[in-house]
This record gives sequence, structure tokens and C-alpha cells, in this order.
Amino acid sequence: MSKFTEKLQNAWDKQNSLLVVGLDPDQQRMPESILQSKTPIFDFCKGIIDATAEYACAFKPQIAYFASQGAEMALTQLCHYISSTYPDLPILLDSKRGDIGTTADHYAKEAFERYCADAITVNPYMGFDSIEPYLAWENKGVIILCRTSNQGGSDFQFFESADGTPLYLEVAKTVAEKWNLSGQCSLVVGATFPEEIAKVRACVGDDMALLVPGIGAQGGDIEATVMAGANSKGQGLMINSARAILYASSDTDWQEAAAIEARKTRDCINEARAKFLAAQEKTEEA
Amino acid sequence: MSKFTEKLQNAWDKQNSLLVVGLDPDQQRMPESILQSKTPIFDFCKGIIDATAEYACAFKPQIAYFASQGAEMALTQLCHYISSTYPDLPILLDSKRGDIGTTADHYAKEAFERYCADAITVNPYMGFDSIEPYLAWENKGVIILCRTSNQGGSDFQFFESADGTPLYLEVAKTVAEKWNLSGQCSLVVGATFPEEIAKVRACVGDDMALLVPGIGAQGGDIEATVMAGANSKGQGLMINSARAILYASSDTDWQEAAAIEARKTRDCINEARAKFLAAQEKTEEA
Repeated sequence: MSKFTEKLQNAWDKQNSLLVVGLDPDQQRMPESILQSKTPIFDFCKGIIDATAEYACAFKPQIAYFASQGAEMALTQLCHYISSTYPDLPILLDSKRGDIGTTADHYAKEAFERYCADAITVNPYMGFDSIEPYLAWENKGVIILCRTSNQGGSDFQFFESADGTPLYLEVAKTVAEKWNLSGQCSLVVGATFPEEIAKVRACVGDDMALLVPGIGAQGGDIEATVMAGANSKGQGLMINSARAILYASSDTDWQEAAAIEARKTRDCINEARAKFLAAQEKTEEA
Repeated sequence: MSKFTEKLQNAWDKQNSLLVVGLDPDQQRMPESILQSKTPIFDFCKGIIDATAEYACAFKPQIAYFASQGAEMALTQLCHYISSTYPDLPILLDSKRGDIGTTADHYAKEAFERYCADAITVNPYMGFDSIEPYLAWENKGVIILCRTSNQGGSDFQFFESADGTPLYLEVAKTVAEKWNLSGQCSLVVGATFPEEIAKVRACVGDDMALLVPGIGAQGGDIEATVMAGANSKGQGLMINSARAILYASSDTDWQEAAAIEARKTRDCINEARAKFLAAQEKTEEA
């Protein structure tokens, strides 16, 4: 088990949660009171982190929201805040990078050194030598896009080989069989396609964690996601929710509302896990 | 013709050059004299820009080199320097972004507003709705990864459908037939694979520009690239060279050496274009 997987397993156990809180700070949707601050992005995200840490297994900052606003400093401070205040909760930097070796070295340095992330999301299109530089950071996790939650995801991820294998399953297979020798790899599989989550889980076996975006604002079904993607322990998933939690209220009660939404989502995931484990026990008895 | 394509065509004509100078500032390879500056990254890139602008049709900053060093300010200043001092030369921001619509909105804002880039490189894996937000900026260009110059590029780009079409050609076809209605799209095709450049050119027709990395340090052959990829005017290519020009000398003559290398590369491309056009004329006569 890699250090990242260990940290994640520990967070799943200790927090009794598979919920990842996505940090997508959009100034147009933040509460009025925050916008008057000199550091609204930092203050808002810190407020969300403090309100939801109890219910989360990880935080996932989406770097685009910081980059468009020139807020690299806020992101740096937030990542350091998480790692010092909630050291058991991994930081998953969502940047979907993908570039050749020498350039990837620089992206790895950005993610793991500058932002002290525990894992990074990356794009598989350019192949293994574009992934390898991240794997060289042996304490870190590498989360590779497989089946994404957006509609356009089908454009090429469903491109099929002669034997009927779609590209996303070829990616899953390649990662599981060839790229994951050190146990550092995970895959992104969108909650909007539970059947495909099941196919990916069947392909990669029990040990690999799946990052699942697409519940909440994007409409993915929590129960279907857990039934399709959990591993034999009823874990193995990092289920991301961002907007539904971040913008649960734009009034003065925004932190409380975020906490309520995060708890509700965690509980909903845990109910589905209980069902999953009960169903599994039944199958084993039969 | 989109505004970006117009600007690029104008630069090809006016500069009589298809050479793109890549800006990949690596402090470990910069001249000693520059490292003593308080702003080495800016100073080095500005020095290269001034030394090579005469021989280039565009500049391509690679954002990873800036991001790893927290040098967003230097990148902003450089992009503004290029657009004010060399307004005819497009800025191609090499960031290979790829994310869902709402997130892509933020990456587009980063590239086109913050860095005033004329075009951005993007990854096709997540499909059309991950590209659309960039196309909404109608004066800008969108350069989509197709066949990349690295070894790992073959891992998935050669994944074949039942009729023998590899993924990279499916991407080329989809972009040419469906995504490029506004004429804003180009493709990335590595110089390390001239045969595949020819296949992509045949697939996308005469009008689409191809960004070709991989000559110089990566070993791609200039003549083979031009013969395979030029359009009927002997243009249609943005041929990138970075390291061979940037680090031509690490001594006090680094600007002069960069200028010599850039001129040599431009001339070498132009010799190949002359051969290409002569060969074309011969074919037409026959």
C-alpha cells in the first residue's frame, strides 16, 4: 500500500466518511459578507473547510478557480492550512495535468512542493511517460481520468476497439495492469454513469480507489454510485461534492448550511454503504 | 477565417517564418549573469524574445515552467510585453488544459484574460463540452492535442477501432468535421512522426494549422515535417523549437546564440518549404 493510499484508508476509517469536499471558489456565488474581506477566496474556503472537515475524508481544490483569479497565494495558504490543521485529511489537487516528461516534472513540483498536495488528477491522453514524473514522488497519489462525468466524456471515452473495449476501459486496464506497480494510482469515474463505475471496479480489482465527481449539482445518484463502485469493505471511493455544499446558502448561515449539507451527504453515502455491505453478506451466505 | 487564423496567416506571410519559439524557462539552464537578477525568469525570456522575434511567427510559453516556480507575475508581464512590443506575433499558451464546462470557463479566463494569449493548447479526452468554453472567445484559437511527440503518446493515441482508425485520427476527424465550424481549431502533431503528420494533414484538409513540437532537442526532422505537413501554400505549420534556441549558449553570448539558432532553424524550415513547393509544382505540371 502506498503512503497516499494509507493516508486515504486512515481517513476513510477514522472519519467514517467517503465524502470529498470540492473547493471551487466562485466569487459570483459567495456570500455578500465574505466579498467585503480583502482575501475573500481564502476566507470562504477556510470557512468551508472548518465547517465540513468533521464529515470529510479529503479536500479537493480545483486549481482553475484559483488560476482565473490570480489567487495562487490563497491556494498555497489553504493547502498549508489544511495540512497543518487537519493533517489526516489528504489534499487532492484537481488540475488534470497532462504533458511530456520534462514539463510534467514542473507540474509535479507545482502540485507536491508548492501546494503540498497529497495527490493530483492527471489526463492519460499522452501516455505513461507523462504520468511517470508524478509517480517518482513516492509518497504521493496520482488520480488518472478514466470515465468523466460530463456529456462530452462520451466523445472519445467510448471510442471502441475491434473487441468492443471502449477507451475508458482500456485506460482502466492499462493503469491497473501496467502503471500501478507502486499502488499510487487511482482513477476518476463520474457518478453520472453507475454502470460504468461497476465495469471499472470489476476491471481494477478491490484495492484501487476511485474518485467520483458528479453527485450533487451534477445529478449523480449516491446509492447507485456506492452499489456500483465500493470495494469489498464498502470503501474504495472518494465521492466528491462541491457546489451543493459550498453554495448551500449565500446568506450569513453559509457555514452552517455547508456543514448540514456535508453531514447529510456523508450520511447518505453511509446508508448506501450499509445497504451495500448487507447485500454483500447476503450474497456470501447464499 | 477566424481572427486567430488571420493573425497567424499574417505572421507567416510578414515574417516569412513558420518557427514558433517555445518559452520553457528552466533556471538550472540559464546563464549565470541572468541568475543574479531579481527577476531572472522575466529577464531571460524577454532577452530570448527580443533576440528571436525577427525569425519567429509566434511565441509559445509553457505554463508549467512558470507554475512550478510561482512565476505567474513574470508570465503575465511577458505576455503583455509580447503583445505590446510584437503585436503581430501570436502568443500560444501551452497549458494542455482539459476539464468540464464550468471549470473550463475559468481556464479560458486564465489564458485569454489574465495572460492575453491568442490561443491555448487543450486536451481532447473529455470531449466537446470541455472545448466549447474556449471557442466562445471568438477571437481566440484552440489547439487540440492529436498525436503527441513523446514515446508514451502511442499508449492510447494508437488505440484502434474495428475499421483500423487509431484514436489520434478519430480526434483529427472529429475536430475537422464537427468542432471547427468557426475555424478556430488547430491540432498538435509531433515532429517525431512525419508519416502521421501526413495522415493528419490528409484528414483535416488545407486550412487547418498544425502545431508541431519535437524538432530540435526532441530530434524531429524539419524537412520530413514540412514535406508531410505543409498546406498547398507551403505554410499551415507552427513548428516549435524551445530548448535548442533557449539554451544555445549558457555564456554571455546567450542572446546572440539564440538568435543564430532561431535564424538557422527558420532558414532550414524555409529551405524545406522551397523543396516542398518545387515538388508540388512538378506534380501539378505532370
